[in-house]
Order: sequence, then C-alpha cells, then structure tokens
Amino acid sequence: MRRSIATVCVSGTLDDKLTAAAAAGFDGIEIFENDLVVSPWSPREIRQRCDDLGLTIELYQPFRDFEAVPPALLKENLARAQRKFDVMSALGVGTMLVCSSVHPAAMDDDELAAEQLSDLSDSARDNGVRIAYEALAWGRHVSTWDHSWRIVQLADHPSLGLCLDSFHVLSRDVPPDGIADITPGKIFFLQLADAPYLRMDVLQWSRHHRLFPGQGSFDLAGFVALTRAAGYDGPLSLEVFNDVFRQSDPARTAVDAMRSLIALEGSIPPNPEISGYAFTELAVDGNSGPSLRTALRGLGFAHTGQHRTKPVELWEQSGCRIVLNSAVTRPQAATISAFAVTSADPSQSLQRAEALLAPARPNAREPGEAELAAITAPDGTSIFVTDPGNDWRNDFLPTGSASPGAGLLTTDHLGLAQPFDNFDEAGLFYRTVLGLEPLATEEYAAPFGLMRSRSLTGDGRHLRLALTTALLRRGDWAPAVSDPQHVAFSTADIFATAAKLTLPPLSVPDNYYEDLAARFALPDAVVAALRRHGILYDRDPAGGELLHLYTPVLGGRVFFEIVERRAGYDRFGEPNAPVRMAAQRHSRLLSGG
Amino acid sequence: MRRSIATVCVSGTLDDKLTAAAAAGFDGIEIFENDLVVSPWSPREIRQRCDDLGLTIELYQPFRDFEAVPPALLKENLARAQRKFDVMSALGVGTMLVCSSVHPAAMDDDELAAEQLSDLSDSARDNGVRIAYEALAWGRHVSTWDHSWRIVQLADHPSLGLCLDSFHVLSRDVPPDGIADITPGKIFFLQLADAPYLRMDVLQWSRHHRLFPGQGSFDLAGFVALTRAAGYDGPLSLEVFNDVFRQSDPARTAVDAMRSLIALEGSIPPNPEISGYAFTELAVDGNSGPSLRTALRGLGFAHTGQHRTKPVELWEQSGCRIVLNSAVTRPQAATISAFAVTSADPSQSLQRAEALLAPARPNAREPGEAELAAITAPDGTSIFVTDPGNDWRNDFLPTGSASPGAGLLTTDHLGLAQPFDNFDEAGLFYRTVLGLEPLATEEYAAPFGLMRSRSLTGDGRHLRLALTTALLRRGDWAPAVSDPQHVAFSTADIFATAAKLTLPPLSVPDNYYEDLAARFALPDAVVAALRRHGILYDRDPAGGELLHLYTPVLGGRVFFEIVERRAGYDRFGEPNAPVRMAAQRHSRLLSGG
Repeated sequence: MRRSIATVCVSGTLDDKLTAAAAAGFDGIEIFENDLVVSPWSPREIRQRCDDLGLTIELYQPFRDFEAVPPALLKENLARAQRKFDVMSALGVGTMLVCSSVHPAAMDDDELAAEQLSDLSDSARDNGVRIAYEALAWGRHVSTWDHSWRIVQLADHPSLGLCLDSFHVLSRDVPPDGIADITPGKIFFLQLADAPYLRMDVLQWSRHHRLFPGQGSFDLAGFVALTRAAGYDGPLSLEVFNDVFRQSDPARTAVDAMRSLIALEGSIPPNPEISGYAFTELAVDGNSGPSLRTALRGLGFAHTGQHRTKPVELWEQSGCRIVLNSAVTRPQAATISAFAVTSADPSQSLQRAEALLAPARPNAREPGEAELAAITAPDGTSIFVTDPGNDWRNDFLPTGSASPGAGLLTTDHLGLAQPFDNFDEAGLFYRTVLGLEPLATEEYAAPFGLMRSRSLTGDGRHLRLALTTALLRRGDWAPAVSDPQHVAFSTADIFATAAKLTLPPLSVPDNYYEDLAARFALPDAVVAALRRHGILYDRDPAGGELLHLYTPVLGGRVFFEIVERRAGYDRFGEPNAPVRMAAQRHSRLLSGG
Repeated sequence: MRRSIATVCVSGTLDDKLTAAAAAGFDGIEIFENDLVVSPWSPREIRQRCDDLGLTIELYQPFRDFEAVPPALLKENLARAQRKFDVMSALGVGTMLVCSSVHPAAMDDDELAAEQLSDLSDSARDNGVRIAYEALAWGRHVSTWDHSWRIVQLADHPSLGLCLDSFHVLSRDVPPDGIADITPGKIFFLQLADAPYLRMDVLQWSRHHRLFPGQGSFDLAGFVALTRAAGYDGPLSLEVFNDVFRQSDPARTAVDAMRSLIALEGSIPPNPEISGYAFTELAVDGNSGPSLRTALRGLGFAHTGQHRTKPVELWEQSGCRIVLNSAVTRPQAATISAFAVTSADPSQSLQRAEALLAPARPNAREPGEAELAAITAPDGTSIFVTDPGNDWRNDFLPTGSASPGAGLLTTDHLGLAQPFDNFDEAGLFYRTVLGLEPLATEEYAAPFGLMRSRSLTGDGRHLRLALTTALLRRGDWAPAVSDPQHVAFSTADIFATAAKLTLPPLSVPDNYYEDLAARFALPDAVVAALRRHGILYDRDPAGGELLHLYTPVLGGRVFFEIVERRAGYDRFGEPNAPVRMAAQRHSRLLSGG
C-alpha cells in the first residue's frame, strides 16, 4: 500500500518537511493547511516541489466547522470551501478532509448535516475533488465513527465518503468492529496514529501525545485490518501531533515514522530466536580504563582475552562478557558503545534490521577476523549480531587468566539512557529490530527532575532493555552526568555474591532501610542483611522480589548492577532509581567528581 | 506569618534544597519523605543542618493510606506510623501530614476513619506529635475538605486536626467558604499551591502543573483569608509539584517561591502609577549596530541624541524612544538589554521591587548624570525606573536631527522571549514588580515546536508585555535564533504608516492572504491593501481588530513590529506568530543568515 505522512508530523518549514518525507521513502503527504499558509511557495510551486521529490499530495486538511448550520452560515461556509477548492486545484490534490464541527452554531441534526455535506459534495464534484468526512473525538454533535458513517449514508453522495483516523476511533469507547461492514469504496482516507492510554481531556491527548504506530497502546494492526475488510486500498497515512516530534530533527522523525509503517505492515523477515547478550562493549580511554578494570576485577571478572589486532580486551565471568575497547572515540568515555546479541540466524536478523531502516555500521575487519555485522541504534549504540557458535571469540588471544567468580551468571539487562528527542524512536527501534515486547513505561521523581523509563524484553527473558530519559530536556542545572548507562548481571544468591565482591558497592543511605522496613514490613534481620551489603529491595504486587545492588558511576557515564530476581519479578526496581541517583551523586561529590 | 516551603518544590538533593530555602529567607520547611529517604544524612544530621541554616522543620509528609481499613491492616499501619514517629522525633518535627487513603482496602466509613485516626492520634500524642489530616482531591472515599473536616470533628481528638492544601480544595467544586467556620485551632497546617485551570485528570494536574501563588488561576488570597477567619496563624507553606521547577536551579526557584509569598501577603509598598515606556535599550555591536540604525531610519526614527560619556545613542519618533547601547556586553547582540518605565514615584517603585526581591542593578553613573536606578528581571533584562520629568534625557547631547516620522506614536508593547526554566518566574516577577495583570496565556504551533505566550498589562494599557517560551526546551534542531525579542510601536493608521516606511517589511506569504480572505470573509479590496503592505490581521470575538506588520530579525535577535489596534483589540495577534516566525526564517535563509 502507498505510504503517506501528514506535514504536521514533523518539524520545520514546509521545505524541511517535504525533504524529510521524500528522503524517508514516503510516497505521499497530507498537506496540513497551516504549513501551506506560512509557506512562501505558491500552491503551484508546492506541487512542483512535490513532483520533483516524487511525492503525491494525498489530502488537503483540515476544513473545519462546516455542517449543520443556519442558512446564512452555510452560504459563508460554501464560499470558504470554494477558496480551498481553488487552492487544491493548484496543488493537484483530490481529497479534502472535513472534520465534524465544533462550532457553537452547529445543530444536532443528522438530516441537516447530511444535506449540507451533500451540497458541499456537489461543489466538490464540480471542482473535481471529493470530501472525506471525519468525526473528531471532541466534535460538538458528531464525535464517533459510526455517527459520521450514518451521516455519510444519509447523504448518499458519490463525492462524499469517510476519513477514519485511528486516534479518533480508538480513543472513544465505541467499538471499531463495525468498520469492517462499511460499504466498500466509502472509506476515502485512512489516518493512523497511536497513543499511550492517558486519563486526560481527549483534545489535549490528541494534540500533544499522539505517537507513530507501535509506540503507544492502540491496536493499529487490528484497525487497519478492519478497513481492509471494508475494501480500503488507499494510502496508509500517518497523522501524529506530538510535542517532541514538532521540535526535533524532521529527517530522523520521518525515518522513525516510516519504520512504524513498515513494522505495522509486517512484510519483513521474522525475528530469529535471540538467545541472549553475547557481550557488552564499553568504550574506555586513558582515564576510565583503569577504573573500569579495577571495578571488573572487584566484581569477580578476569581479563581472559586480548584482541589480536586492536586495543580491545575481553573480560569474563561465567556467561557475563564485557569488552573494553580503547579504539572507540566517543564524547564521553566510559560508556556503552555497543552490545552483541546471539541470533539463531544472524543473517536474517540483519535483513530484518535493514528492512526496518536500521543503519548498517561498517565493520573494520582485519583478514581472518570474525565477520561481526552491526547496526546503529538511534542512541548511537552499535548492535552486533553473532551466531550461537560465538565465532567472535576467536579474534581474542586467551590470556590464561580465569575468573575467580562472584556468582554472576549472565547479563540480566542493559540500562540505556536515551537522548530526549529519540525516546519513542528508540523504543520502536529496539522493539521491532530485536523483536522485543514492551514490559512497562514508568515515571518517577529523581533528584534532578522527573524521569521516564520504558522496559522491553523478549520471550524467555533472554534480552531485557531498560530505556530512560528525562521527562523534560535537561538544562544547565542538572549535573553533567545525570543519565548514566549501565550493565546489570544476574546472580542466584545476591548475599553470597555481595560477600565475594572486593569492589565497594554504592553506599545506600540508612534512611532508605528505615523506610524499607516501614513500607514492606520486612523482618529486622532481612533489613540488616540488605543494609550490610548495600542491597536494595523491591516487591511486585504478585509477591515477586528484586534484590539488587549498584556500583558508583565509574570513569565516565557507566555503572554496574547486580540483580537477583525471585518468584518471577519482571521489572527493574524503578522505585529505587531515585535512591541510586542521589547516592551516585553523593559518591561523585565525595570523590570530587 | 512564618514562611515555609516543602522540599519537593525545588530540584536537587536535600542539601541543595535546604541551602536554597535558607538563602531565599524561608523560616521553615516541610520535609518530603522521598527527600529524606535518598539523603545520606541521618535525621539527626538533617535537624542539625536545618538548625545551622536557621530553618525549622514544620511538617513531615506524606503518610499515606492509613484510615478506614480492616483490623489487620490497621495494626500494620500503626506499626508503620510508629517508625515514622521515631524519625520525626530525631528530626524534631511536631506535625505529620496524613493524606486521605487511596488504598483498595479502604472503606467508605466515616465512623471507622474517625476511630482509626483517633487511634493514630493517641499514638501521635504519646510520641509528642500531632496529626494533620488532608483530603487528597483524588482520595478513594475522602476527597473534599468538608469531608475531611467532618471526620476530624467525629474523631474529636486534641492531637488531630486538618491540613488544608489550596490545590486539593480549589481544584474541586466544593465551595471553600465554609473553611471560615472551622473551629479555631483545628487547622493544623496550611499548604499553598496555585495552578492554571486545566481540563485533565486531577492527580496528573496536581503532580505536574502546580505553580507558586500568583502564577496560576486560583484565588489564593481569598483562600488564606478564609483560614485566617478560622484563626489559623501557623506557617504559610508552599507545596508545589512542577515538572520545570523539579529540574531547574533550586536557588532561583526558592527566590521565586519567596516572592510569591511576599506578593500574596501584600505587605509591600503599593505600585505607583506607571505611565508608559520611557525608552527601550538595545545592545548592539559592530555587526548589528549598522543594520539597526538603517532599520530605525527606515521606520522614520532619527538619531536625536548622543550620550555625554558613553557610546550610547538616542533614537526618537514622537513618543517612541530607542537607545542603542554599544557598551553593553551580551552574548547575542542586538537584543533588548533594558527598558525604562516612567513611574509617578520612582523611589517607591524601587522600594516595591526591592521588597519583592528584585535584584538591584548597579548603575555606573558619571558625575552630573541622571540617577537611573535599575533592577534585573529573571530573563536578564534591566528595568530602569524614571520620573515623569524624564531627567535621563539630559544625559544626551541633542544632535539637532529630527524625526521625519512615519506616524509611530508610542511603544505599544515589548515581546520578551524567556529562558525555558524561568517562564513562570518571569510572569510573576513582571506582574508583581510592575503592578501588571495577566491578560491571557496561549499556546500555538510554530515551525520549530509549540510556543507558549503570556501577556501582561496595567490599567490604561500604558505598559504591555508579551512573554514567550518554547513549550519544550529547544534542542539542536531549532535554528539558533528561534526566539527573538521585539519592540512594537503603535500607529493610528497603519496604511499611512506603511506607505511612509523606507524599510521593507517582512515578506508575508500570499498563501496567508488567501487563507485570511477565507477565514474572515474580508472584502477583496481590504485583503489587497493588507497584502500590498505586508500587513497581518486578527479579529477578536468582540469585533476588535489588529492590523500589524513586522520587520525581519535584525542583526541578532531583535525585530520591530507596528500595530494598529481597533475597537478595543487587546491581544497580540498570536495566531499570526507562526506566519511571522516562518517568514523570518525564510528571510534569514535568503540573506544567508
């Protein structure tokens, strides 16, 4: 199907928007009237520019407050429409979106609405265009899709059909199932937007919090299937009002938008089984390298391998593998520069990633080295895809050292702080490219502002990711490193592990344990044991428990976590994150960092 | 009355918060439990720190989900409370806030709630503390102040009283008037927060959008008066949950908070009559100076005076005065570095400003020069206060030039783009220090993201200010100068004025005029005349009209506007701001800027 995007989805002037849409591979656009009004280009010039870029203009929108009004106002409205038809003719666009009225003079009279929409459709027909009528979720009298369909049926005009917008349909409690029974040919246009479920005024929800398909909570695939059942074969067009997208790089947003459509359509290679993290790579420099090595030793890791040709070290303990790479240049070292996942079919994993517009990362491979293809995530992290044989380990010469071990078993999860503009993009990217499912999105108050976290995982919990960002883009006040990355390792017995560590864990305030005892009514002995080792605690409503400890932030913007999950605990101890953040801040102040 | 602030109001660790509260002159704090929990200081150390800073701890908060539960849970809750009483004892705090329960096990049973609160109050009394019970606006069964008061009356316990929070009271539709009849002594604590009226879930409204008194829409003075009528003489304590304040400099936020209380209490010198803008000062440098001079000439200004000792020029036309100052160092020239207002009593104006914690700006005055005292606004703009005699003009030697004139009459308003973190602070500052009233707060979609504007004015409209900021802090995508400052001059006949200008106005797209004709059904001749001169148009619901034109952004981040207000139009043409912003962007691209 053709893919289209409304100009309102992305930031910039009309030129920026068209360029971004074309570069991302869209076939067409919806032109949002405000973008036209502020453009120095005439409609004819806009049409020419779209032609040059290979874009069709699929829809002119929105035309507001038309139907079911007194005769004098109808006359004015028809005159107003004629001016827009003239613009549409110069633009070469064949369909106008008319959204249900919010005008105080609009009457609750379906017959009148149908009659006046029929008048408008006569005029549209004479101008060679057609009308797609849409029920705004906050329309004065018409606010549900089935109501708009009744009116279109009443009017029974060949130039009048429906525009169905997934937000307006799915934000209301009228079931969408009947859409499948709409007369074939009468859905003139389909607009797609996802959204998180929010308890707020529906207009504000719509104008500020829409997302691209797959980034929210709506069943977009089901919605599209209903329209296909009704014979719809026009473009899938995105119409997303989002405060962040409105002010971030339109080229990136357009790619994010296109990825959402590709994933929605589903015609991509299936995701091969991912059996876990092969390794996590940390970029280090002369400052951060020594402190990272000390920390890894303190956690029971050993430097087991040295890369044959590069300044790259492999550190291991059981199934936990950290690669320290001194050859990566990143603005802030140490940080997580890459991670590798083990795929049952790396080549298919990469084909899937490519189909989802994941940029390939060129691999500087020496002769004889393992081929380790990589893609780059929106946050700049590289993702390597390895085979179950872990051939990449042959690139390392064994040092002969072995890990003394502290009981760490495997990489439980990565915590990746995201750039503010790319949080939703990153969620969709990791979810679709790695075949993960969202676990939860949470907000919490941290010392330097509100934080948002979104966790993802796959079947079998072999791969877990926790993405975080500040709820507002940080300004000057927050300390430079408020948003570190981290690697979390699992243990089956955190008390035994803690006893073996020679790295002092992050110091947790006594006040935390006093409060913990009150909150969970834990026995004094348990609280004392937690306190002794600096272990934090969380419990889920089903009784699952998390016991976890942190290191301070080490040599840059990375830290480690050790987790013991009990009884199916499936979250990330988010309530403890502010405690961790304050303690890491305190620890940096103490060390003069 | 004593002034207090909840630690949750400001950003940072507990140390940052206490330091900021003390520096701003607060007498006490409410300690928010989360701030205590994440602190490395023991309660005793916190008490000591507060002692050292001269702060009392007025309230421990919040204790949640206590009342009207089954017996087993009551027992747990009393044990939980005992742990908090122990902490309170070490902190030396005498009152604990208990907010109405949201627990699923809580029952709708006032008798039971009263009985259990009475049990809690027995325990509180034994621990030497008292309980202030507060109805959360989203409490499960108790969500209004009058309901909480009925329960407190039922319990009839000397250690149990009310906490009244202005947000929880005024966000609900239960009238507050009955507060005046509460038994004297039974209001144990008063929490103050303002908020804009928003149509959203009350919990989200409360947790994200509270403001300091005077920054929102609530009648805080009336609320405080009701509590005084009920004999309340405890501290006025601010409890504001605000996403921006949570992540901005706590020292500034605390001063903003203190200013809001000072203004609320009202014991400051009254505002003398302000009769208008005396002048607006633009900081210029070698690059921007020439283009500003050309522009002023093109608008009909003349360089009428030269400062006796400084590289400062006076440009005049009728009652419009611009001072070009080449001696001011600002990061971006040209910009509005200062403005001067004419006060009937400059000395009292400055006393009022000082009482409102406006920082005085030292004036480098040469002998014989006019004394021109100034204060600094939160956005860094200096505000001079002059007398009606305008003695400051004596510092300028007349050049002999006279303005040819283009019909400009006076300074209509200033448009001051605000730093993201300081928008609400700036609104309160300008409003209280200059004795203005809010006109309107609006949001609109601009090419590089959503914008918010807040306009202020005084009696007689002699002084108008339009403050703007981006709805989200800007990132890398928006062009460097997305938020220029501007000076708007009035004219009685914008067509006559436009005909006299030799500076080409900002080029307005034809598409704008096509749309204007459709929107307002304006006669073709009128639209043609507007189009010919690049004049924009707006109309208010009462039929008031604004005709206005803009210059491009000139040599930095400043532009000029010319406005003709008709029939009482009292706004700022906000719907045209996106047109202006896109056109200014286009103009800069054309000029290679």
